[in-house]
Amino acid sequence: MCMNSHSIENIRVVMVETTHPGNIGAAARAMKTMGYNNLYLVKPKIYPNAEATARAAGADDILSRVVVCDSLEEALQGCVTVVASTARPRSISHSVFTPREYAPKLSEMLKLGTVALVFGRESSGLSNEELEYCNVILQIPTNPEFSSLNVASAVQILCYEFNQLLQSDAVDKIDNEEKTRLATADEMTYFYDHLEQSMIDVGFLNPQQPRKLMRRLKSLFNRAHMDENEVSILRGFLAAVRESVTKTKSD
Amino acid sequence: MCMNSHSIENIRVVMVETTHPGNIGAAARAMKTMGYNNLYLVKPKIYPNAEATARAAGADDILSRVVVCDSLEEALQGCVTVVASTARPRSISHSVFTPREYAPKLSEMLKLGTVALVFGRESSGLSNEELEYCNVILQIPTNPEFSSLNVASAVQILCYEFNQLLQSDAVDKIDNEEKTRLATADEMTYFYDHLEQSMIDVGFLNPQQPRKLMRRLKSLFNRAHMDENEVSILRGFLAAVRESVTKTKSD
Repeated sequence: MCMNSHSIENIRVVMVETTHPGNIGAAARAMKTMGYNNLYLVKPKIYPNAEATARAAGADDILSRVVVCDSLEEALQGCVTVVASTARPRSISHSVFTPREYAPKLSEMLKLGTVALVFGRESSGLSNEELEYCNVILQIPTNPEFSSLNVASAVQILCYEFNQLLQSDAVDKIDNEEKTRLATADEMTYFYDHLEQSMIDVGFLNPQQPRKLMRRLKSLFNRAHMDENEVSILRGFLAAVRESVTKTKSD
Repeated sequence: MCMNSHSIENIRVVMVETTHPGNIGAAARAMKTMGYNNLYLVKPKIYPNAEATARAAGADDILSRVVVCDSLEEALQGCVTVVASTARPRSISHSVFTPREYAPKLSEMLKLGTVALVFGRESSGLSNEELEYCNVILQIPTNPEFSSLNVASAVQILCYEFNQLLQSDAVDKIDNEEKTRLATADEMTYFYDHLEQSMIDVGFLNPQQPRKLMRRLKSLFNRAHMDENEVSILRGFLAAVRESVTKTKSD
């Protein structure tokens, strides 16, 4: 088995508010068996912890390199694509794929930068607000009557599934014409803040009753996988809007 | 997702001399998430056990139906094919496949009768003598430097992999209840005209030198397959921009 180590290094596993440290250890082990290294934890309930180390069963190097973050936003810094693993379909309109359907797209994305695979809490998964950071939702096909996959098992399945792909040389077929760098998660956050502020400035968005609008727009822009150039065009436009509004106001 | 229940009922998961009861529970959960029911245990070290029940996390029906056997031979009674999952290649001459390679063959076999998927001990796997019961060896592709898959993870991966095959229809994608109509081409044209005009209004786009701005933005929005709702939100924003600019100008 020959892994494309460049690709695999570009995958970041992000576990959000994991309750049981054993699941963190099991996830580290699952990752390592499939050749993955980068684990980020957002506000783990208990970590580090002996149970995590025990369940890692030798994947200690992954645990010792773990990056613990205070927010999902922080954990996603620098990622060009954010992929959420969820058990339940959401009403929010995201692109939803099975892992196998998404695999070819993933390999394309990995050529452009770091991709985050985000796993939610054991009990409640990811919040809608957290899903707003995500470009894509993956749903592992499960028994409709019992879809309660353990979180480390979900990590195992995605790592296994994508590892199958990364091994195959069929991967290296995607064209590289005029490839612009994709916007990172933090750049998208700035853009959304900017957009929201503009909407407030012109009286289109009432900050007292804000949510649905921005959620819909994030869903739209996340779906598009914007590149840095597109973000900068739109931010340029928003800056011009602001200037135009304030200038005329002060005239 | 519609599982072929006849096929899945013909799969028997057999765990040989499992040491940790937690792994039995986790395997039961893994099976159930993928729609499998039949678990046989050959001389489990500790079973039944509270830890097994805890890790099963609701897959209690599988545990309550578990068949505990005194020997592998007993556990394999009635099986038309015996498939062993091993981490290490063996000197014994078996046919060795990856799970994915074997999947089509498995579905053929399931038409003929019961197929056993056999998983060895946590520490030492299956003995050569036990492997002699097996028709086929499956090796899950792993990191050559760390191939130590947890046994319940191996169960999870095989159940997942074969479930992909046994599903007749490819998972129903994105059944968004709130499916909004996609914007039509003419609506997109109006939107683009509107966007262009706004960019001119605020001095961001020079109609004398339009460059590739609009082309780039069209490419972005076309990629996203906007729905009518999203178009109308953005047009609402653009209208507010115009109003805001002209109102303040005329003040």
